[in-house]
Amino acid sequence: MGFECIQFHGSPSGQIVQRKFVHPELASDEVAVKVTHSGLCGTDVHYSRADMVLGHEGVGIVHSIGSGVSSLKVGDRVGWGYPNKTCGQCEWCLQGEENYCRNIQMFGIADFEQGSLSSLAVRKEQWLFKIPEGVSSEDAAPFMCGGVTVWTPLINHVKPYHRVGIVGIGGLGHLAIQFAKKMGAEVVVFSATDSKREEALQLGAKEFYTTKGLDDYSTLGITKKIDRLLISSSTKSSLALFYPILNPKAMIFPLTFGDGDLTVPNAGTIQNGISISGTMIATRFMQNKLLEFAGRNDVHVVAEKFPMTVEGANAALERLKEGKMRYRAVLSWD
Amino acid sequence: MGFECIQFHGSPSGQIVQRKFVHPELASDEVAVKVTHSGLCGTDVHYSRADMVLGHEGVGIVHSIGSGVSSLKVGDRVGWGYPNKTCGQCEWCLQGEENYCRNIQMFGIADFEQGSLSSLAVRKEQWLFKIPEGVSSEDAAPFMCGGVTVWTPLINHVKPYHRVGIVGIGGLGHLAIQFAKKMGAEVVVFSATDSKREEALQLGAKEFYTTKGLDDYSTLGITKKIDRLLISSSTKSSLALFYPILNPKAMIFPLTFGDGDLTVPNAGTIQNGISISGTMIATRFMQNKLLEFAGRNDVHVVAEKFPMTVEGANAALERLKEGKMRYRAVLSWD
Repeated sequence: MGFECIQFHGSPSGQIVQRKFVHPELASDEVAVKVTHSGLCGTDVHYSRADMVLGHEGVGIVHSIGSGVSSLKVGDRVGWGYPNKTCGQCEWCLQGEENYCRNIQMFGIADFEQGSLSSLAVRKEQWLFKIPEGVSSEDAAPFMCGGVTVWTPLINHVKPYHRVGIVGIGGLGHLAIQFAKKMGAEVVVFSATDSKREEALQLGAKEFYTTKGLDDYSTLGITKKIDRLLISSSTKSSLALFYPILNPKAMIFPLTFGDGDLTVPNAGTIQNGISISGTMIATRFMQNKLLEFAGRNDVHVVAEKFPMTVEGANAALERLKEGKMRYRAVLSWD
Repeated sequence: MGFECIQFHGSPSGQIVQRKFVHPELASDEVAVKVTHSGLCGTDVHYSRADMVLGHEGVGIVHSIGSGVSSLKVGDRVGWGYPNKTCGQCEWCLQGEENYCRNIQMFGIADFEQGSLSSLAVRKEQWLFKIPEGVSSEDAAPFMCGGVTVWTPLINHVKPYHRVGIVGIGGLGHLAIQFAKKMGAEVVVFSATDSKREEALQLGAKEFYTTKGLDDYSTLGITKKIDRLLISSSTKSSLALFYPILNPKAMIFPLTFGDGDLTVPNAGTIQNGISISGTMIATRFMQNKLLEFAGRNDVHVVAEKFPMTVEGANAALERLKEGKMRYRAVLSWD
């Protein structure tokens, strides 16, 4: 019994390795998903030397269900991201903020055999999402982590009359441009160089500014200031750079996970009522709303496609490490 | 014609000097206020070498009014803080966020002859506040800046079931303890040394922790984490110190004006959905609500009293500079 599968796994060298694995029989709340697609994200680079299966932007077809599963059936198309299980009991679950569950089981800290770089994954019913018909599996996979990371601050804090700044165009930024534009906001992109200008404008940016080497952003010639700023670049600069082009009560969202500190000007923050707000993936409610919204509004991932093989996985990992991906890797078994 | 008065003025040496001044006749929207009380705040220290009358926590009695003044009459008891005039036209005024008015005239940047360390000040009707009967002038003066600086984040973001941390007990902190407690919240105080423990508990703190020299706050023995943290100490430490004792979605409010940067941990901010929020004084609506609330709930300033003389002003300034004030200086003509 059990489910035999192929998995792509971290290793001490940082190279992804292939292995066979047999999942045990399903617990009553579990679902076996035949993986078709997986995104690859910065966090996979972070864990590429860890003893675990990589991938946390999974999409596939339900292969079999545990005895207690009621919301999914065999053949359903589903996706998943970071979390696999939340407790439903802690104060954060009780507030509907289950992405901050104090007992969360998620990628990187639990369920190390259940990554999406595999042919079959066993997931809890609780954090599997049905993919709506109008959303392709190739789009849905990166929506599960990269997409929802930008969706949450935008849907919670952006009004359609805001000017939204997006710093850095990559897996997160290229989706943030589309979501913000399609919420009705005016999108302003900041990128190191000019190389992504045309694509950024096509994705929905109204203005595009290059910032490499610039230490005074007030010289950018921005006449209307920014209300919300999403920082999705991997290089961290002092937030002070942005202060001259922010409106009062602006909110800044640092989105790129990593060590180190943010440098925040004290006086400017107080005088202008600026906020710096952390945000971590999304509630299940918001993940579902993202999928609906993306389907209705033609939000799409600009993907580089790789085969779900050990060579494909390593090629994608390498390109991501080098910062060359435009803009998200999607691996598939097709 | 005009109004002769005595004023206490900054000087290049940082000593406060006395001078005579004659205010011109009132414009139609102006009010002459016979000053009775003034608080003294860190910002006065900041401006003590500037060419201006100090004091921005004023209380007094209306002495005469301009031809267009309709909401005040001679004999009314009024107070004022930082702002003297806002435009009513900019986007921030239109949102009722007039404390972020783009054309604000306020202490330190305009109306340099209108500080509250004086016998008479000429102020715009727009930013004068009637003091309710149950509030003493001695209390009302520091409510105009120090009080409202802590009131705004508390009233906007604290729920009665929150645990509210107050860092530093001074002019701001000792009022924050009272406001938070009287909103129903549980108050936890962090102070460098033990010297203010008894007073903090009497003011309403439930718990008191000393932090001097401590580089790991998880050793403080705090079992229930903090939801909102007001930082009213003048020494800036890395916010990382507090992260182990903060709940998810905690909000941190740096309140003490001054140069320099805040150091904010990137990963902890994202993972736990922490916000760092600047906040600058208050709207007129909130200033009025503070006065009502303080009157109904017996919030009082713990004041050191000084005569409104050049000696009194310099003595208060000196004590404030040395960090010895318990907890707010109030100067008066009585």
